[in-house]
Amino acid sequence: MAILVGEDPASKKYVQNKMIAAKYVGILSKTINLPKTVTEEEIIHEIRKLNNDSSVDGILVQLPVPEHVSERNVCNAVDPKKDVDGFHIINMGKLSINMDTFIPCTALGVIELLKRYEIKTFGKNVVICGRSKNVGLPIALLLHSDARNECPGLEATVTLCHRHTPQEELEFYAKRADIIISATGVVNLITPNMVKPGCCVIDVGITRIQTEDGKFKLVGDVEFEGVSKIAEYITPVPGGVGPMTVAMLMFNTFKAAKGLANIA
Amino acid sequence: MAILVGEDPASKKYVQNKMIAAKYVGILSKTINLPKTVTEEEIIHEIRKLNNDSSVDGILVQLPVPEHVSERNVCNAVDPKKDVDGFHIINMGKLSINMDTFIPCTALGVIELLKRYEIKTFGKNVVICGRSKNVGLPIALLLHSDARNECPGLEATVTLCHRHTPQEELEFYAKRADIIISATGVVNLITPNMVKPGCCVIDVGITRIQTEDGKFKLVGDVEFEGVSKIAEYITPVPGGVGPMTVAMLMFNTFKAAKGLANIA
Repeated sequence: MAILVGEDPASKKYVQNKMIAAKYVGILSKTINLPKTVTEEEIIHEIRKLNNDSSVDGILVQLPVPEHVSERNVCNAVDPKKDVDGFHIINMGKLSINMDTFIPCTALGVIELLKRYEIKTFGKNVVICGRSKNVGLPIALLLHSDARNECPGLEATVTLCHRHTPQEELEFYAKRADIIISATGVVNLITPNMVKPGCCVIDVGITRIQTEDGKFKLVGDVEFEGVSKIAEYITPVPGGVGPMTVAMLMFNTFKAAKGLANIA
Repeated sequence: MAILVGEDPASKKYVQNKMIAAKYVGILSKTINLPKTVTEEEIIHEIRKLNNDSSVDGILVQLPVPEHVSERNVCNAVDPKKDVDGFHIINMGKLSINMDTFIPCTALGVIELLKRYEIKTFGKNVVICGRSKNVGLPIALLLHSDARNECPGLEATVTLCHRHTPQEELEFYAKRADIIISATGVVNLITPNMVKPGCCVIDVGITRIQTEDGKFKLVGDVEFEGVSKIAEYITPVPGGVGPMTVAMLMFNTFKAAKGLANIA
């Protein structure tokens, strides 16, 4: 069950894609559209109704919410057992200590890509660009930690870079990296000279730019053309991490429906 | 109010130091000693009594607890509003998204040292050795994150190293670091050749070793003699981070008593 506040075209598109995927895998889903003038109390009231509705297994509120609404209060209003986005404070806490929980979908999608392509992470150098609480940070939490935990970590050495990492330092770290994960929305942040041959590059960025002929297209953080010649693995934008995010939302919803997340 | 399970001499000593500090600053404190055969239910029963006792502002359970007891269940039994160690899952979640909360005392002590000595962190390279959930990870969470958050981050680029970081990679990262924080319990992990002149080295390790003359002494992770000649700042062991941990416990207890932690 998705809650969409306002008319942002990107948010609408994301929610549409999630609905299509749900239908495809056989999950009944519905979107509740709320006007962007809705109050925080009204959103939370809708969430509470869904919390109490036993026919609803998973709830997500498409972010961002309008500025007059506290994203944190909204995320914390969702029943942690139905929190398929993994943004509730209890689920963030569990993730940070590697307990079994709902993991934010984009982070889970990145991890799943690494696993499916059998990219080695044990003792490897990973650079993560971007420290957002629902993408960069969860990826860092999963990649650096101990494989013996309840929710197994991937045992990598992780460097977390962000807007205040100087360019030369980012280059220094990136050149040594076995895996680069970029989630910044900065177009062409990762250039061919920054990448070690054989590296695995995962591009989580997605930015809409206007090309010379006036058309719009979606691009990532990575200079794909050049970097793809050096890296051994690289994800395209669009069509890379995006669909994985949607797939992992289906996974989390299935987990919620079957009561498989270990909710204390 | 401290709960001490069993007779571990180091734990006893730590609790004693905390009691002395409490008395020194004017906090009434008491230790409840439980035998190491105590059940998890009995410990949690004691915690619940303290949760419900309005004369108690702060509760800590000295870790480690015996193997038959779940550390996680014990930490989560403490009322988050009295959780002066900051180990409750809700407080870990808040820390991970930089909300105001009780921050684990050792991590807070390290941050306070950096602040008091005016060590610059903005855009600086930090290497953290050790990924424990109550020391290495909270330090990483505080150092890498955004200064504009409710609980302000320190805007550093953070590399999190651990037992599976190969030695040559650790050296690679350490040599570039402006700040090295080591919390591993590996004696002589940080050697002079790994440290950049002008670096700040914070030694959180504490290990009891036997010297040639048969006596015991406490040492950290850093080869102090050599490293102190190269680093601009270095903390000794004992007498560096240890007392800061105790001081920060007093700070957290004061915060709990005054209701200053923003508990949602």
